[in-house]
Amino acid sequence: MNSIEIRKGIPSDIPAVMKLIRELAIFEKAEDQLETTEEQLVQDAFGDKSLFEFFVASSQGQVIGLSLFYYRYSTWKGKGLYLEDLIVTKPYRGQGVGKKLLLETVAYAKQEDCTGMYWQVLDWNSPAIEFYKSLGSQVDGEWLNCKLDKVALSQLG
Amino acid sequence: MNSIEIRKGIPSDIPAVMKLIRELAIFEKAEDQLETTEEQLVQDAFGDKSLFEFFVASSQGQVIGLSLFYYRYSTWKGKGLYLEDLIVTKPYRGQGVGKKLLLETVAYAKQEDCTGMYWQVLDWNSPAIEFYKSLGSQVDGEWLNCKLDKVALSQLG
Repeated sequence: MNSIEIRKGIPSDIPAVMKLIRELAIFEKAEDQLETTEEQLVQDAFGDKSLFEFFVASSQGQVIGLSLFYYRYSTWKGKGLYLEDLIVTKPYRGQGVGKKLLLETVAYAKQEDCTGMYWQVLDWNSPAIEFYKSLGSQVDGEWLNCKLDKVALSQLG
Repeated sequence: MNSIEIRKGIPSDIPAVMKLIRELAIFEKAEDQLETTEEQLVQDAFGDKSLFEFFVASSQGQVIGLSLFYYRYSTWKGKGLYLEDLIVTKPYRGQGVGKKLLLETVAYAKQEDCTGMYWQVLDWNSPAIEFYKSLGSQVDGEWLNCKLDKVALSQLG
């Protein structure tokens, strides 16, 4: 593959990051679920209280991939890194960009003294599951995700 | 039930919080998995960079329940609250303490401008699943949890 650089994300990456997030939402036929804006992402990543951090993969100065994460906390294990999104734009898939992003994030988790790295995968995505297992990750289907969305929250309490 | 107070956790609550965490670990026959210490929990909650916050339920000055949470980030929805642990000590179960803790956490999520509240439940825990659904939460089994633990992390990158 062409030379791919992985680096920490900066505010001026946000428009390209938003494009990747939108590409994934369209692929999942859920563009109408996408409520964040570029301005909000800049504020949430780089404002007073940073809610997430990210790495980008770039090729010839263009952002073509994203690893977006924040810190989680395990009362048994302490500080961990939660990988929320790992996206590579379609024309660049199958060239190891995702693996590069993932491994850079692993290195960062270690540097930041995280005792674990966590993420989720859809249960039908066998190639991804096999890939994650090949890296040594445990994949567990015992837990269900629970969510109170904006509407449900507004009706409680 | 006796009068139960729900309030934000403070550093001097941590020994009681650790006791609740240990009680749950013993119940799950996983006490050997418990690696955090009281000192570490104090540091991680109240140090320079707070990794989690919590509410306690207290009865006659004694901590009998815990809701422990941190912020997550959804690239589609923005800031959310992730509820990591909801624990009520055994003698006080079945008296609505868990619901009180959960609703106080919901109120806090709304106050902190979260667009959603998230947590997980074991797939065989039908009473809990029904309770969460009765509050309006969506429960979804499509996703698997992936984890690189300390050992797996150390072998990568």
